[in-house]
Amino acid sequence: MNDLTHTPEMLIAQMGARARRATAQMAQAPSEQKAKALVAAAAALREALPKILEANRADMERGAGNGLSSAMLDRLKLDEGRVLAVADAVEQVASLDDPVGHVIDESVRPNGLRLSRVRVPLGVIGIIYESRPNVTADAAALGLRSGNAVILRGGSEAVESNRAIHAAMVQGITEAGLPADAVQYVPTTDRAAVGAMLRAVGLIDIIVPRGGKSLVARVQEEARVPVLAHLDGICHTYVHADADPVMAREIIVNAKMRRTGICGAMETLLIDRAYPEPEALIAALLDAGCEVRGDEAVRKLDERVEAAQESDWGTEYLEAIAAARIVGSMDDALEHIAVHGSHHTDAIVTRDAAVAEQFLARCDSAICMWNASSQFADGGEFGLGAEIGISTGRMHARGPVALEGLTTYKWVVRGSGQVRP
Amino acid sequence: MNDLTHTPEMLIAQMGARARRATAQMAQAPSEQKAKALVAAAAALREALPKILEANRADMERGAGNGLSSAMLDRLKLDEGRVLAVADAVEQVASLDDPVGHVIDESVRPNGLRLSRVRVPLGVIGIIYESRPNVTADAAALGLRSGNAVILRGGSEAVESNRAIHAAMVQGITEAGLPADAVQYVPTTDRAAVGAMLRAVGLIDIIVPRGGKSLVARVQEEARVPVLAHLDGICHTYVHADADPVMAREIIVNAKMRRTGICGAMETLLIDRAYPEPEALIAALLDAGCEVRGDEAVRKLDERVEAAQESDWGTEYLEAIAAARIVGSMDDALEHIAVHGSHHTDAIVTRDAAVAEQFLARCDSAICMWNASSQFADGGEFGLGAEIGISTGRMHARGPVALEGLTTYKWVVRGSGQVRP
Repeated sequence: MNDLTHTPEMLIAQMGARARRATAQMAQAPSEQKAKALVAAAAALREALPKILEANRADMERGAGNGLSSAMLDRLKLDEGRVLAVADAVEQVASLDDPVGHVIDESVRPNGLRLSRVRVPLGVIGIIYESRPNVTADAAALGLRSGNAVILRGGSEAVESNRAIHAAMVQGITEAGLPADAVQYVPTTDRAAVGAMLRAVGLIDIIVPRGGKSLVARVQEEARVPVLAHLDGICHTYVHADADPVMAREIIVNAKMRRTGICGAMETLLIDRAYPEPEALIAALLDAGCEVRGDEAVRKLDERVEAAQESDWGTEYLEAIAAARIVGSMDDALEHIAVHGSHHTDAIVTRDAAVAEQFLARCDSAICMWNASSQFADGGEFGLGAEIGISTGRMHARGPVALEGLTTYKWVVRGSGQVRP
Repeated sequence: MNDLTHTPEMLIAQMGARARRATAQMAQAPSEQKAKALVAAAAALREALPKILEANRADMERGAGNGLSSAMLDRLKLDEGRVLAVADAVEQVASLDDPVGHVIDESVRPNGLRLSRVRVPLGVIGIIYESRPNVTADAAALGLRSGNAVILRGGSEAVESNRAIHAAMVQGITEAGLPADAVQYVPTTDRAAVGAMLRAVGLIDIIVPRGGKSLVARVQEEARVPVLAHLDGICHTYVHADADPVMAREIIVNAKMRRTGICGAMETLLIDRAYPEPEALIAALLDAGCEVRGDEAVRKLDERVEAAQESDWGTEYLEAIAAARIVGSMDDALEHIAVHGSHHTDAIVTRDAAVAEQFLARCDSAICMWNASSQFADGGEFGLGAEIGISTGRMHARGPVALEGLTTYKWVVRGSGQVRP
């Protein structure tokens, strides 16, 4: 393509202009048409299975040759089951409620003006991601369902897989009569294109990074376009003096060990000094195969506990390691969370409803939990059907972000000739 | 103060840290306490009237000596009536509904988890403004009512007036038992402090610029903190073929001429080619004292019309000048608005409800109006009680922004021991 001879800035500017033009049609597309496009895209993905697997084999071979780690190769790898799961996920997004057109509120002014706030798509969404090719379909599906145009930039290691998946998505949406420019894939692996996306104020309305911490950090650091993301998930569980001991044990083991690599996994356990059975909590984690790094009081509970360094309180391990600390009160627990946490998901375990409500009110995190495992921090578990990401920022959308978070609103004012006195 | 010997970055970091600590108490403050603080602040403002006027006289004398324009001096000037109006406005904010604690939605998951989204304050709001001292009280009042901490940076020309108003606000809030650090005034006129605020990611959650276009442009250009603002209000009124001629004339004259200097003032008139009485519209504007700059078709309607240059379509005059153009259809009108508008407020005048609904759906502006003057684009007129500003951005809040726009939400999850399978 001739585009490729231009600078990344020009390329992104051209793509952004095409995306912006597509938004006019996307914003007006009836819900059924968008659903039909996703169903058609799912069918196209299933039909393209051999092509997608072939493209993925090429990526895998090149990746192995380039010395990608086995973890990276696993994230990159597609097989029949994974591709069919991607297609199913796209089809499932078609069945989610369309937020566009929803009337948030309405009022009639004394002068007769009728006001309403109506949900409309955000506009153009830029997705910057790494080696998982399924993001190509997942993110495009959520963007489309909510009436947006999407510009996708996947990792260079997955470029063939991404292109094959992208082609199937475009086939589906054009079959439904929606514009191909509503889902564009950046046709260069030049890393400068990422920078151009991050600076594309006015062309791209929001950037969603999907990937590891270094990607998110770079995006947050460089972006001039608003970013929807979380950098860290340093999640705490505070076991209050009046926690049910069995419940406390089950929750903390699940919160830490069910899957250690997700952002909602517990990283730090805070135990109230007045909690009667702290040894059992620490032993349960250790027995489940978790390394525990504790303060002095915790180390006295079990000789297997390592000494925590100051840096442990601010570390997102994402593996079978937990920091643990004895705190003097709920105030101390909240103070620890405020200082060391990342405003993602923090939980209290207690039988005392009044204490729990205090914690839920005062904890300043995107998700505040009572008597539940922080591993529930997930759009699917929250009933949102899917999620584009989890936001720890305070603007626009917070916590798991799904379709509603990809919309904004406009004010619609209906009058009968009113002029302002 | 010792602070002043440090760099602006250190000063803002210290103020930001104090503000953040204040947010914990502010977020939990009962609605009545915040209201009481504002009533007390209003009383303190009235009591401080002589001091405020004295401070203002000092600013006015220094301003006159520094050669400020008469328009700037008028914006700067306070008299008894203006100060009492400021106090009344603060007291009125006390009576507005408090958005904090409002439950946006709730659900129960099949596993019994009870989810709700609850409104909480945004956190720390930075207000950067110019010569109008009333902003010191207005912005602080809105920030406080919605449970936020506020860092104020007014123009150096109003520094004495701002300090006197700020002192009265602090007196009111401390009388009500709220922390003085919830409303801080940047104690230096060093312009570098503005830059430090704009870069204070993590310390300041949102910046609201209040002032002229050059201020807003600088803030939008330099800020790393999210900004809530509009740069331009290039508002259009499209007179459709089936517009009521009397209504059309009254609306466009009001939209342009009621107050030419506000952001909701009409800047461009678009007349459908099939509208039967275009001459009367142009004549009404001219007769009201408005200069009209038209395309060729408009110039043929009245010899007093000047020739519009291409730049006229993208100009926010903010005075008694209007651009005018004949368009072939609603499609053309929407295309003109999309290309030249600023996504602020755009209106259609027509008797045809189906056409109007098409326009309202397809127009991509923060405020879309039918048969009403664009001069209604205002938080007070929208029933919001007040406004911190009007946003033409797409993220977080759009159009007139009042208390709700100064909040975010958190997810509260109440369980009974659920662990994730």
